[in-house]
Amino acid sequence: MVGLRGVLTDTEARMIFRQLFDSTSGTYSYLLASRHGGEALIIDPVLERVDRWLQLVRELDLRLVKAVDTHLHADHVTGLGELRDRTRCITVMGEHSRADVVSMRVAEGDRIEIEGLRLDVLYTPGHTDDSYSFLLADRVFTGDTLLIRGTGRTDFQNGDPRAQYDSIFNKLMKLPDETLVYPAHDYKGETVSTIGEDKFFNPRIKVGCGSQICLSRRGRHRGLEERRRTARALRAWGSSSSSTGISRDPLGSIDAGKSVQIPIQIA
Amino acid sequence: MVGLRGVLTDTEARMIFRQLFDSTSGTYSYLLASRHGGEALIIDPVLERVDRWLQLVRELDLRLVKAVDTHLHADHVTGLGELRDRTRCITVMGEHSRADVVSMRVAEGDRIEIEGLRLDVLYTPGHTDDSYSFLLADRVFTGDTLLIRGTGRTDFQNGDPRAQYDSIFNKLMKLPDETLVYPAHDYKGETVSTIGEDKFFNPRIKVGCGSQICLSRRGRHRGLEERRRTARALRAWGSSSSSTGISRDPLGSIDAGKSVQIPIQIA
Repeated sequence: MVGLRGVLTDTEARMIFRQLFDSTSGTYSYLLASRHGGEALIIDPVLERVDRWLQLVRELDLRLVKAVDTHLHADHVTGLGELRDRTRCITVMGEHSRADVVSMRVAEGDRIEIEGLRLDVLYTPGHTDDSYSFLLADRVFTGDTLLIRGTGRTDFQNGDPRAQYDSIFNKLMKLPDETLVYPAHDYKGETVSTIGEDKFFNPRIKVGCGSQICLSRRGRHRGLEERRRTARALRAWGSSSSSTGISRDPLGSIDAGKSVQIPIQIA
Repeated sequence: MVGLRGVLTDTEARMIFRQLFDSTSGTYSYLLASRHGGEALIIDPVLERVDRWLQLVRELDLRLVKAVDTHLHADHVTGLGELRDRTRCITVMGEHSRADVVSMRVAEGDRIEIEGLRLDVLYTPGHTDDSYSFLLADRVFTGDTLLIRGTGRTDFQNGDPRAQYDSIFNKLMKLPDETLVYPAHDYKGETVSTIGEDKFFNPRIKVGCGSQICLSRRGRHRGLEERRRTARALRAWGSSSSSTGISRDPLGSIDAGKSVQIPIQIA
């Protein structure tokens, strides 16, 4: 497995990249810039952390020009409005968003650009119908669509397990294996994964040898020695109508009763 | 400020680097390897996280050959012994360590090597007398000696504020400004800093314009606009004899009564 970093541009290799964690909601936010003194972009800022974000922007001698949410967050209040009011930055979400705070709406195939950096927009619904992922060279910001060894719940905010399946297998899993995965949440102390790892070891995503690819809602972590075994049909996401409450854990309340198994060929 | 990454070797740019967080003790641990299928090294593993570490080592198709502690941790039990027993890896600490679990003791100037990667050993006492830092190309693992916008307490385990001063200013702060700082702890959701940032914005480390450099045990975060002001005498670390208990926060119980101010020229 060869890393993409070897083919990064000089700017990408030197970019400023900061991952911050809000322990109250288990949320990761991200600050990106191509250089000190230049433009910056923030992904999934948490309202209660806005002061620290702005302090860090000042300390790094940056100018915040865009603030982006991957989707409407149910487990914390977004910092987009506060950041906009305090910096006049552009607030960005996908075109499916119904949030008033948004000043720029993007669609699949669009680009979100700041000085020296570019995010490619992927529409990845399933956790919610306004879920987008953003690809930056060697890394992808997956919101709650794809978590580290997990996936977002699909039982509220117009969630849809079949859309989730399509987003994960026909978009995210088509990215190069070495692509770094930076999600909006983690509850177990992981900070990053790769597409290749989660293709094999995400207990909700089972990739067998050959053409059989399955989704599993519950599963065990598996060791490398199990890779070669054909992963057969396992339970898939269910769309629960029994829980409409907001859970701190996006994995928390998915109904175990329903399943989907769809064979797909991944190159 | 130009990033070091532009001058990294191909191996360093492609290396596997994982930061894991133990929320119980607020500890960061690190997994390093130069390639999938190769040798790996772990820094500051927490006993309760050993299962996950070994699982990740298997998932990434690695072979753990060395486990390293920056110092004797008072806030959690080290995973070195458990990792040694389960993988036969070499356990590494500095020569000042009195821990029985250590099978390889290193000194200032030594190198800790695994396939394709090299850690340069820096003796950085002050938090404890067995505190070491490890330099890997563009990043340094500072244990509790230098934290993000903080420094480790110096009031137990043979801590010494003057040694801490010397370690920080005459060793760590001599590294290039763009060197990434990966500490053993954070309690506020930060994951990484740089030497340059903490030189200016660490409230316990004040660097003025010109030759005056001061240490502050307590202080406010400062914005970029304040950089140009001369930072004058501020209180420095105190060595408290009143508290010998173990605090979850290494910043927690430093005595405010004593101070040190030492002018130093940093190039």
